[in-house]
Amino acid sequence: MVTMETYPIQIGGVTRHVPLHEPFPGVRIPLVDFLGDIEFVRAVTSELEPKMPAEADLIVTVETSSIPLAHELAAARDLNYIVVRKRRRPYMVDPIIQEVESLTLGVGEVLWLDRRYTERILNKNVVLVMDVVASGGTMRALERVVNRAGGKVAARMAGFHQGEGAEGIVTAAELPLL
Amino acid sequence: MVTMETYPIQIGGVTRHVPLHEPFPGVRIPLVDFLGDIEFVRAVTSELEPKMPAEADLIVTVETSSIPLAHELAAARDLNYIVVRKRRRPYMVDPIIQEVESLTLGVGEVLWLDRRYTERILNKNVVLVMDVVASGGTMRALERVVNRAGGKVAARMAGFHQGEGAEGIVTAAELPLL
Repeated sequence: MVTMETYPIQIGGVTRHVPLHEPFPGVRIPLVDFLGDIEFVRAVTSELEPKMPAEADLIVTVETSSIPLAHELAAARDLNYIVVRKRRRPYMVDPIIQEVESLTLGVGEVLWLDRRYTERILNKNVVLVMDVVASGGTMRALERVVNRAGGKVAARMAGFHQGEGAEGIVTAAELPLL
Repeated sequence: MVTMETYPIQIGGVTRHVPLHEPFPGVRIPLVDFLGDIEFVRAVTSELEPKMPAEADLIVTVETSSIPLAHELAAARDLNYIVVRKRRRPYMVDPIIQEVESLTLGVGEVLWLDRRYTERILNKNVVLVMDVVASGGTMRALERVVNRAGGKVAARMAGFHQGEGAEGIVTAAELPLL
């Protein structure tokens, strides 16, 4: 039996008491949940949207849990967005394949973008959007994907930042390592 | 070099010329893209929302490409939604694990729902939402997940249906097998 401890996260006028996850002994992180919680996603969107550059043409995010935030931020500016995948899909033709540099050993994560999306990115001012950034490795890999598709990164944005590695990333709030 | 053929999909006043994917020789399916296309997702939502039962308490969907549709349908009714996963996540404790019955041989897909979501499903009238339904196997597995969590399925909804297997599923439109 797991005793469920929670941590309060407040953003705008919205508070969520989220469960704590212990990925390593002695390190606990709040499990922020963007999937399914529209009120919470919109509160984060309200914090981030004013910080988005005026010249933004397009949002690029990575599956899965960042999708609702990218969706709401794009809707707020009447933009489209592109979702970079973490698994190869059967319909992909000549995809951009980008490894995520990981600080831990083992199998690294890989990002996949079907080639047909690259024409939408070419020469565009792209805002990268993620839900939570920790080491920043996935955000850097996302930036490489956009650059390889011929786009220019206009801003890096995340709902929350946790730990080190958020240089140059605009966030709505910090999350503690407990 | 792949010659890109497209197929026109019209829904409400919105038309998209989507690429065709050939999963098997001689079978081509239109690649409907809900990820990133807010105008299209909202057109599908406008078709489906009036057909959603009044007593709906909650939407349950499955990652990844169905998330924007579930998000918009939930927003239209001021409901929350839950995203069932296709991979185990490290934070999951005692998850519901449900195999998808597949008509083809090989490794079947498995659905995962973290146990902490089940209390939100218990005794609720749940609307299942997917982007595209083909054989209906994933939709049936999703229904099993909801039943195992103590919820009652009030409706099964999909943006599009393709081929056989959509008995009892409310859709916005049919897609051809070309």
